[in-house]
Amino acid sequence: MKRRLAAACLALALAAPAPPPAASGRDAIVQTSVINALMIGRYDGVTPVADLLRLGDFGLGTVDHLDGELIVLDGRAYLARGDGSVVDAGGMTTPFAVVTPFDEDGSLPCPAAGRLAELEAALDAALPQKNAFIAIRIEADLGSITVRSVPRQEPPYRPLEEVSKGQSVWTRDGAKGTLLGVRSPAWVRGLTVPGYHWHFLSADRAFGGHILNCRIQEGVVRYDVCREWEILLPDSPGFDAADLTPDLSRELKRVEGAREPAPAK
Amino acid sequence: MKRRLAAACLALALAAPAPPPAASGRDAIVQTSVINALMIGRYDGVTPVADLLRLGDFGLGTVDHLDGELIVLDGRAYLARGDGSVVDAGGMTTPFAVVTPFDEDGSLPCPAAGRLAELEAALDAALPQKNAFIAIRIEADLGSITVRSVPRQEPPYRPLEEVSKGQSVWTRDGAKGTLLGVRSPAWVRGLTVPGYHWHFLSADRAFGGHILNCRIQEGVVRYDVCREWEILLPDSPGFDAADLTPDLSRELKRVEGAREPAPAK
Repeated sequence: MKRRLAAACLALALAAPAPPPAASGRDAIVQTSVINALMIGRYDGVTPVADLLRLGDFGLGTVDHLDGELIVLDGRAYLARGDGSVVDAGGMTTPFAVVTPFDEDGSLPCPAAGRLAELEAALDAALPQKNAFIAIRIEADLGSITVRSVPRQEPPYRPLEEVSKGQSVWTRDGAKGTLLGVRSPAWVRGLTVPGYHWHFLSADRAFGGHILNCRIQEGVVRYDVCREWEILLPDSPGFDAADLTPDLSRELKRVEGAREPAPAK
Repeated sequence: MKRRLAAACLALALAAPAPPPAASGRDAIVQTSVINALMIGRYDGVTPVADLLRLGDFGLGTVDHLDGELIVLDGRAYLARGDGSVVDAGGMTTPFAVVTPFDEDGSLPCPAAGRLAELEAALDAALPQKNAFIAIRIEADLGSITVRSVPRQEPPYRPLEEVSKGQSVWTRDGAKGTLLGVRSPAWVRGLTVPGYHWHFLSADRAFGGHILNCRIQEGVVRYDVCREWEILLPDSPGFDAADLTPDLSRELKRVEGAREPAPAK
């Protein structure tokens, strides 16, 4: 019976649209590959986005050929392209993404913030679990938001820091939408983005990207503290041959941690 | 139905003596806490060994109060104490351990080796998956083996490097037994032990510890390549308050990577 049930469980896990419980029964944040692989230019998709949607309904990342900013919200995957368009990403693959079943642990009113760094400081004070991962979902009215996306790349791939110099940047005033954030511990060096990583998707699902800055008038913060971290390592000779040991922290901060001053009112 | 089945799955995962399939259906290596927490002296058990035995039947680590070297073999947990005795560890808790369902991916004859470093060089040549985790099980006739264990600690805990200076070391000639190894990628800094980490358990289950050196006459190597890495983070204010960011690589290498020259014949 147990074997039959276990087989049924595996079948369910592979077939179910909703995320299965984590192996340990705890709330898991799951990522495919490691950020250093993306930093050195490994942009080919290794995991179907559809597989990630079975492991989490909330998250962010990129897709095959670095063709934009991936946003996973309410179990649907969206891609904010370098040309500003937002398309469905459910059929794509990804070289790097982070997802979790968003299992709300608490909420708070979103503090008014003149810039992204102010919002992050307020969240640090409200969420002291610095050695856990925290998924943060903010529904907000934005005085203004500045996002970027990146253009599709073709092999031979250049390092992410070079590619990001060709990013497109947009600022919108008076937008409504969702800020999707993942805060990772400071000690995740080389594996994922330390600290805050934010993507945005507008309420009408027509506009989004990687957040460089925002001015928040009001909103609601909901968060999910994750204490199980799963890393799915690509099974390929190319991945195994890659040198993922260099310390690319400074380059990563310039690419993913870039913050812009608050746009003028 | 799906919800009932999912609930049954969770119940099975929590109750089953055998490891449940990993959330992603891939072969997972699971660890509790991170090695830097052990390095700075967080020796209180945070995870029941019985829970780990549901996530893997093979592995190594330590137990509450750093009371010796933990060995998980064929689904049973053993503790090699600082006084040389081996006892059942199934009812203990652990501050740091690594386990996997040992799912053999291949085997090879164990090369004769005059010292542990020779064995590791031969395994590096045979197992090129340097960016994956590999569980290695070697049944061997040993010309000689040198192991260490550590004495139980009491709070306030001192850092692991200090404690390890008080380790007990034994050498046995003509032993038969199992070498349990975990080889982790070079980029796991601060989270687990990079490279090889070896424990030993004698065939009669009476002798074991953390391997410092060995001379192998013959044996069989079996290995399991793991491409899903799960880290279970302790849920405690003490863990969240700990500064796990310092680079303790050199100290860790002295503690866990120590190798002794081959004992004289």
